[in-house]
Amino acid sequence: MKATILTVGDEILIGQIVNSNAAWLGEHLGLVGVEVARMETVGDDVQAISEAIGRGFETSDLVVVTGGLGPTHDDVTREAVAASFGVPLIFQPDVMAEVERVFVERRRALPETNRKLAEISEGFEPILNPKGTAQGLWGEREVAGRTQRIVVLPGVPDEMKAIMREHVLPRLAEMSERVVLHKTLLTVGQGESSLAEHLGDLPEVLTTGVSLAYLPGSGIVRLRVSARGDDRAAAQAGLDRAVERLRNDLGDRIFGEDSATLEGVLGDMLVERGLTIAVAESCTGGSVASRITRVPGSSRYFLGGVVAYDNRVKIRQLGVSEADLEEHGAVSGAVVRLMAKGVRDALGADIAVATTGIAGPDGGTPEKPVGTVWLGYADAHDTYAVRLQLSRDRAINIRLSTTAALNLVRRQLLRQN
Amino acid sequence: MKATILTVGDEILIGQIVNSNAAWLGEHLGLVGVEVARMETVGDDVQAISEAIGRGFETSDLVVVTGGLGPTHDDVTREAVAASFGVPLIFQPDVMAEVERVFVERRRALPETNRKLAEISEGFEPILNPKGTAQGLWGEREVAGRTQRIVVLPGVPDEMKAIMREHVLPRLAEMSERVVLHKTLLTVGQGESSLAEHLGDLPEVLTTGVSLAYLPGSGIVRLRVSARGDDRAAAQAGLDRAVERLRNDLGDRIFGEDSATLEGVLGDMLVERGLTIAVAESCTGGSVASRITRVPGSSRYFLGGVVAYDNRVKIRQLGVSEADLEEHGAVSGAVVRLMAKGVRDALGADIAVATTGIAGPDGGTPEKPVGTVWLGYADAHDTYAVRLQLSRDRAINIRLSTTAALNLVRRQLLRQN
Repeated sequence: MKATILTVGDEILIGQIVNSNAAWLGEHLGLVGVEVARMETVGDDVQAISEAIGRGFETSDLVVVTGGLGPTHDDVTREAVAASFGVPLIFQPDVMAEVERVFVERRRALPETNRKLAEISEGFEPILNPKGTAQGLWGEREVAGRTQRIVVLPGVPDEMKAIMREHVLPRLAEMSERVVLHKTLLTVGQGESSLAEHLGDLPEVLTTGVSLAYLPGSGIVRLRVSARGDDRAAAQAGLDRAVERLRNDLGDRIFGEDSATLEGVLGDMLVERGLTIAVAESCTGGSVASRITRVPGSSRYFLGGVVAYDNRVKIRQLGVSEADLEEHGAVSGAVVRLMAKGVRDALGADIAVATTGIAGPDGGTPEKPVGTVWLGYADAHDTYAVRLQLSRDRAINIRLSTTAALNLVRRQLLRQN
Repeated sequence: MKATILTVGDEILIGQIVNSNAAWLGEHLGLVGVEVARMETVGDDVQAISEAIGRGFETSDLVVVTGGLGPTHDDVTREAVAASFGVPLIFQPDVMAEVERVFVERRRALPETNRKLAEISEGFEPILNPKGTAQGLWGEREVAGRTQRIVVLPGVPDEMKAIMREHVLPRLAEMSERVVLHKTLLTVGQGESSLAEHLGDLPEVLTTGVSLAYLPGSGIVRLRVSARGDDRAAAQAGLDRAVERLRNDLGDRIFGEDSATLEGVLGDMLVERGLTIAVAESCTGGSVASRITRVPGSSRYFLGGVVAYDNRVKIRQLGVSEADLEEHGAVSGAVVRLMAKGVRDALGADIAVATTGIAGPDGGTPEKPVGTVWLGYADAHDTYAVRLQLSRDRAINIRLSTTAALNLVRRQLLRQN
C-alpha cells in the first residue's frame, strides 16, 4: 500500500510551525508496512485541499489528511473531503453526543459552532478521538477496480497520534498482507559511522526482509531493526536473530530499548541499587543536573549539585585547592577528580560525577583547544578522570559532555554489578 | 509572486528527519513578499522530482527545491531539474574550480564523484554556496508569456540558509514590486491571549499594509510587525508607528528585538552594571544555570549555583534552617528567600535568584497543587519572593519557571536603573 500525507494549514505554509506531524506519520505508516510516496501541504482552502486529495490518489491508495477539522470558520477540511468524494456532509446525532460528553467532562459550555464537529461525509465512518472533540474520519471508495482509502485526522499532534495509535495503525497493520516487526536498540558513546564500521554489513542476520537503520541524535544513536515477511513466526525469528547479534556485538554500548532515555535508565539503576548521586558542573553549567531532574521521581536518588563556573566556587564549595588550580589549570584531570570528590563529600552522596572543559567559542589554547573536556567520577572506593576531545561548537560540546557524564556513571554501575 | 517549496529526500518520507527546511523557507520567503502556496516532499527519484516541479509551476511562478544536490549516487535532483526543463547538464570548469578550492581549504582529498557538483543545467546560473561544495542553481524560462523561476538548493540546513540569505532572498526582495519590512519585538511574562486582549485591535496603527503576528514560545511571545506597500518611506513610517505604539503599550514586557534571547539580554545588563549572579535551584533542577551558561562569555558574570533538590542540601549548602523547612515546607516564600540569600552569601555574588516548587507529576496537595512555584530574589538591599501557579505538566513547569526566574532578575535590574 502506498500513501500520500496531506497536511492542511496556513500556519505551516508561512513557517510558523514545523510540520512534525508529517514526520511522525511517515515513520509510523512505514512501521506498519505502508510506503509513503509523497507529502504535501496546502492552506486552509476548500479547493486547494480537494485538489490535493485528487493528486494524492494519482500515486497512492491511501491519503492521510491532518489539520483543519476544528470548529472555527477557517477549518474547512471537512467540506473539502466531502467535495473531493462528491458526497454531502450529514449531521450525526451519535457523534454530537460524543462531543457533548467531552465538554461535560471538562465542565465547559458547548459553543454553537461545535455542531460542525458532528457533520460527517456521507458513507464515512467516524473514528473516536480519545483526547479531544474533533473525531477522525475513515472513508473508502472503489475507482477502476482499486480501493481508495482516506483517513482524516485533527492537526493537534497529541490528538492525531492518539487516533492513529489506537485505531488507524492497528487497522492498517491488519490490512497489510505482510508482517512488519520492529525493535529499536539505543546506544551511547560511539558515533554513527564508527558504529557502522564496528558492526560491518552483518550478512548473517540482515537476510532478506531484515534491515537495520541508524538514527543518530546528540551522542546517542538509535538502531532500528525491522523484519518484514509473509509469515509472522519467520519475521519474529529474523528480528530476534538480528537483535541478539547486535546485543552481542555492542554489549554495554546499548543502554535501552524503544522510548527509554539515558537519564531514565540511569535513574532506574540508582533506585535498584539504593544509591544517591550528586553532580559538580563547570563547562556543562547545570545541564547534567537538568537532564537528571527531567525524570519524574528523580528526587529519590538525586541529592543536588554545585555549578562551579567560577574558580572561587570550585575552591569554597568543592574544596579544590588553589595550588591544584594553579599547577594543573581548571580544565584538568586533577581538578575534575577533586570536584567529584568534593561534591560527594559536601552533599553526602554515594556517587558523584563532575565536568570541566572549554565549551567555546573562546578560551582555547594549543594544549587545551576548544572542545577539551574532563569528566570526573567518585564513589567510596574509586576516584578517576576521563578526557574527551569534542567539537568547536559550544552548544554541541555542552550536549555531548552531558550525555558522556551520564554514561560514565551508567558504565561504572554496570562494572560493579 | 507565488511559490511552491519542494523538499527532496527519502529520509523525510520515512520520518527520519523533520522537514524544518520547509518551515524556514516558508517564513523567509514570506518576509520578502513571496506567498507560499504549496509545499511538497518526494523521494530521491528523477521522475518523482521532475513531476513535482511540473506540478509546482501549475500554481506558482517560483519553485524552490532543496535536497539531493550532493555527490553520491542517490543525489538525483540535478538530473531531475534538467529533465524537467528539457536541457542537458553541462560540466562547468569554473564551478569545478570553486569546489576544488573548498576541498583544498579543508585539506581533504577530492573524490572523483565530486565532478558531478560542477554539472549545471544548460542556461542555469550557479549560486555560490558560502558553507559547502554543492552550489545552488537559479533557472528561468518563459512559458505562455509568464516567467517561471526555479531555485535549487542543497538540503544541509546551514548551507541552504546561507545561500538563501546571501544570494536568493536579496534578489527576490528586489524583484518584488512591493516593499516588505519587518520588526520583531520579544515579550516575556504574559501569555499570547492575555497580550492580545491587553493590546486590543490597534486600529490607529494597524492600518492598510501594516500587520501584527503573535508567535508564542514557552513563556516568551514574539510580536512580529510587518509593513507592506509600494513606497519604502511610507512602509517604514507605518512600521515605526506600530512599533512605537507596542513599545508604549507593553513597556518592560518587551525584553529585546529579533534574534535576542532573554538570557543574552540579562547577561548584557549584568556586564553593563558590573554585577555577578548566582542561582539556587530546587524545582528547576539546574535549568536556570544551564540557560545562563548557554551564552558565550557568561563566565564574566555567572559565578555558579547550587542545585538543592534534597532538603539536606538546602540546609547544609544554603543555610536554610530546619525550623523553616518544617514550619513552611520546602515550597514556600520563606524557604525560597533563604535559598536566594544563602547562595548569594555562599558564593559571594551581587545578586541571587532561587526556585522551589512542585513540578509534578506527583507531590501536589490541595494547598500546594502541582505547578505551585516560588521564586526568590536577593541582593545587598532586597530579599523577596514571588508565587506562580503554572501547569500540570512537569516539562512545561520547569521551562516556565526557568524563564520566569531570568525575567525576575531582569525586571529588578530595570527598576534599579
